[in-house]
Amino acid sequence: MNLGRVTGRVWATRKDVRLEGQRMLFVQPSSFSGKESGGLIVALDTVDAGVGDTVLYVSSSEATVPFRPGLMPTDATIVGIVDEVDHKEGSWTPNPESSDG
Amino acid sequence: MNLGRVTGRVWATRKDVRLEGQRMLFVQPSSFSGKESGGLIVALDTVDAGVGDTVLYVSSSEATVPFRPGLMPTDATIVGIVDEVDHKEGSWTPNPESSDG
Amino acid sequence: MNLGRVTGRVWATRKDVRLEGQRMLFVQPSSFSGKESGGLIVALDTVDAGVGDTVLYVSSSEATVPFRPGLMPTDATIVGIVDEVDHKEGSWTPNPESSDG
Amino acid sequence: MNLGRVTGRVWATRKDVRLEGQRMLFVQPSSFSGKESGGLIVALDTVDAGVGDTVLYVSSSEATVPFRPGLMPTDATIVGIVDEVDHKEGSWTPNPESSDG
Amino acid sequence: MNLGRVTGRVWATRKDVRLEGQRMLFVQPSSFSGKESGGLIVALDTVDAGVGDTVLYVSSSEATVPFRPGLMPTDATIVGIVDEVDHKEGSWTPNPESSDG
Repeated sequence: MNLGRVTGRVWATRKDVRLEGQRMLFVQPSSFSGKESGGLIVALDTVDAGVGDTVLYVSSSEATVPFRPGLMPTDATIVGIVDEVDHKEGSWTPNPESSDG
Repeated sequence: MNLGRVTGRVWATRKDVRLEGQRMLFVQPSSFSGKESGGLIVALDTVDAGVGDTVLYVSSSEATVPFRPGLMPTDATIVGIVDEVDHKEGSWTPNPESSDG
Repeated sequence: MNLGRVTGRVWATRKDVRLEGQRMLFVQPSSFSGKESGGLIVALDTVDAGVGDTVLYVSSSEATVPFRPGLMPTDATIVGIVDEVDHKEGSWTPNPESSDG
Repeated sequence: MNLGRVTGRVWATRKDVRLEGQRMLFVQPSSFSGKESGGLIVALDTVDAGVGDTVLYVSSSEATVPFRPGLMPTDATIVGIVDEVDHKEGSWTPNPESSDG
Repeated sequence: MNLGRVTGRVWATRKDVRLEGQRMLFVQPSSFSGKESGGLIVALDTVDAGVGDTVLYVSSSEATVPFRPGLMPTDATIVGIVDEVDHKEGSWTPNPESSDG
């Protein structure tokens, strides 16, 4: 899994029928400290993430696990909203408000 | 999933029998703003995309989902034609004409 | 899928039993214009490709599709011999002789 | 599989239900000598690894094998704690204390 | 598949139960001529490879094929010991002694 930040959204009217009703979000991969790393991807969202949230996303074919037993043509899916990051240099709370609700 | 722009087409007479009748398109991966990023790939098309269209494509083994329960030897498939991109810097409509039809 | 050019062959006597009788070819990934891009891989061949041919190969776990329902330990398989490439800059016929036979 | 060093931990309250109770650890990929190589990932832990441990982790869809027959949305899982590394330049014992218990 | 050279070995006492009794070898990816390319990986061995051997290894989820129908948490497995490499520049016999036995 990887850490990333939601930075936007994509709309497509003409698309695979399985993608109907799915939110497609831009995710900027980031390091433990929130610094950007690597190119932007488009991920499906299963945890109601919003723009600005630091999230955990899973890539490769396991991105379909949250949709099973159904089929979903996705290679990246957001599976968690990060509350806290504990790293060598100390602790970091990327989404302070999201752990309140 | 990734954003890309269709830039051409490939033909092959001698090929895996499952690829008969499939359109094979060149896709140039691009960033949220349409800027090129990374090397060209060849993707199958399930949404009748044309050269110049900005599309969403899925890679890895989930590229086969649109063809299930059949088998298809593909690791990249176009699954949507992008209507609108909403990013930090604002909104972008890459394929204005494709949302009209 | 990706474009590549067959550049050689590999032999292994001691190998997984499923690879017996399979041709293992070197493929140099290439761009739409035939220019080399990225490192050489070893691919199985299902279309009787020869050294010098420009081919389409599929990577990741879908490389096994041409061998199903059998199992095959491969992550790259040649699935087509390219007749023609149509790109922004025009048309290109990488293997003129292979479309004749 | 790859070698890596556990460098921290991530918490997420809002997440895919299958991730409940799973430890999510930061792993810094490293080379045979322990030198860092490549970007940090987040891996699930099946061997009770701790911060500072040098571990073996598996990526891609085989990261789910330790959880089968259950489903788990992971693309990286720690599957071993390294006792000893034997390389050209000699032997290395990255976690001397972990082989004692 | 890729070419590589076996450069060492890794031991882990605490590990996924499916890895018990499996040899875990360091493999240095290499090009057709034996030159190093890319970072070291850890692969399981199914052909009794030794340090110094030039081998073929398969990555991604097809690395599990040699272990089926069993499950194995591996994303890289050695599936052949290379006898001969035939490339543009001529022929190369990386493991002359291994083809004798």
